[in-house]
Amino acid sequence: MRADGPAVVLLSGGLDSTTTLAIAQDAGFAAHALTFRYGQRHAHEVEAARSIAQRAGVARHVVLDIDLRVFGGSALTADIDVPKGRAPEQMDTGVPITYVPARNTIFLSYALAWAETLAARDIFIGVNAIDYSGYPDCRPEYIAAFEALAALATRAGVEGRGVRIQTPLLRWTKAQIILRGLELGVDYGLTTSCYDPDETGAACGACDACLLRRRGFADVGAADPIRYRGAD
Amino acid sequence: MRADGPAVVLLSGGLDSTTTLAIAQDAGFAAHALTFRYGQRHAHEVEAARSIAQRAGVARHVVLDIDLRVFGGSALTADIDVPKGRAPEQMDTGVPITYVPARNTIFLSYALAWAETLAARDIFIGVNAIDYSGYPDCRPEYIAAFEALAALATRAGVEGRGVRIQTPLLRWTKAQIILRGLELGVDYGLTTSCYDPDETGAACGACDACLLRRRGFADVGAADPIRYRGAD
Repeated sequence: MRADGPAVVLLSGGLDSTTTLAIAQDAGFAAHALTFRYGQRHAHEVEAARSIAQRAGVARHVVLDIDLRVFGGSALTADIDVPKGRAPEQMDTGVPITYVPARNTIFLSYALAWAETLAARDIFIGVNAIDYSGYPDCRPEYIAAFEALAALATRAGVEGRGVRIQTPLLRWTKAQIILRGLELGVDYGLTTSCYDPDETGAACGACDACLLRRRGFADVGAADPIRYRGAD
Repeated sequence: MRADGPAVVLLSGGLDSTTTLAIAQDAGFAAHALTFRYGQRHAHEVEAARSIAQRAGVARHVVLDIDLRVFGGSALTADIDVPKGRAPEQMDTGVPITYVPARNTIFLSYALAWAETLAARDIFIGVNAIDYSGYPDCRPEYIAAFEALAALATRAGVEGRGVRIQTPLLRWTKAQIILRGLELGVDYGLTTSCYDPDETGAACGACDACLLRRRGFADVGAADPIRYRGAD
């Protein structure tokens, strides 16, 4: 994968999307980072995304306000308790309550609009089918369906130029993701993963996202540079 | 098509979406109307949508602000002249400059989020493949691809309940649409079609949308109740 054209990269401020951004840039793409402020409780993600985009020297960073709260229905946008301390096998049963209805579909739709405006042929998204198998819109068949839709949805599609949905992390373990990111010089201290950080931004260490992240760093044998509550 | 559950209906305030709303309600659906304010020049459409939703007695009407201007690229959101006085055959050549990148994909994605929250199995959209053959995201194959995506994108999809994208107008002429709407008691005086209305809301009468609308009413032999510039 070598390229020098523009690409749209969905950037949440988390570990996966930050690694995806580094992979896109390493491949030669001029990264156009797209972040959403969607009424999530962890709005500090948006600030993390700004720092990451700046450090990465992206071609442009757009932060879009979208309001998914009007529709309700998820722990990340409504007032539902985030589950804590679950073992990995518990995380895999069914659709997580932290699932946001149609979120990736909305995110990819905006990315598609920007890609068309830029005449970009590539959209990067850091979905992962291993750690997040319960999310319907992180599955390979979902991504393939969006790519098929994109080929029909746009002027570029009509003219025979489709859009590739690039998912470099799709089948990687968290440890593989972290290893690749460290090779590419990603500063994971800027990233945030926790579903339930405190007001200072310190991670809870116990939600699904924290547990997966900590296990990934432990598997790699590297220190996780972010701050956890109750830790020094 | 008989039903009594909730359905999401995309409502722009135009003739087609207003007729679609009437068809959904006539079929027995509890209509949840969804309108977007997206920086289009004809923001009076949003006010028209409010009046239409109120008169139709929808279960709920949500107006969402989305900003497609950050991406640029269309006459309806940027400062490009709207073409006037074109013959129908001219309208059919290629993708119109009034095309908004990925617009229907973004609209349907939000509709999908709301449908999932409502446990609705139906989304209505007033696309038409006859009058707007140049818009990639009004084609039957595009709609089919979105339906396939929706079956994979959501919790309902994972659980085996897909979402139907209902397009009752897909293959109707403008005259057929107007005839059906008049049968259902639609007040077309509340609707707005013009791409370039003046500050009082009067239609230009010469853009593609006005010409198609006027021809439709002429074919039906009915009076168009909206106001045109220069007319009494």
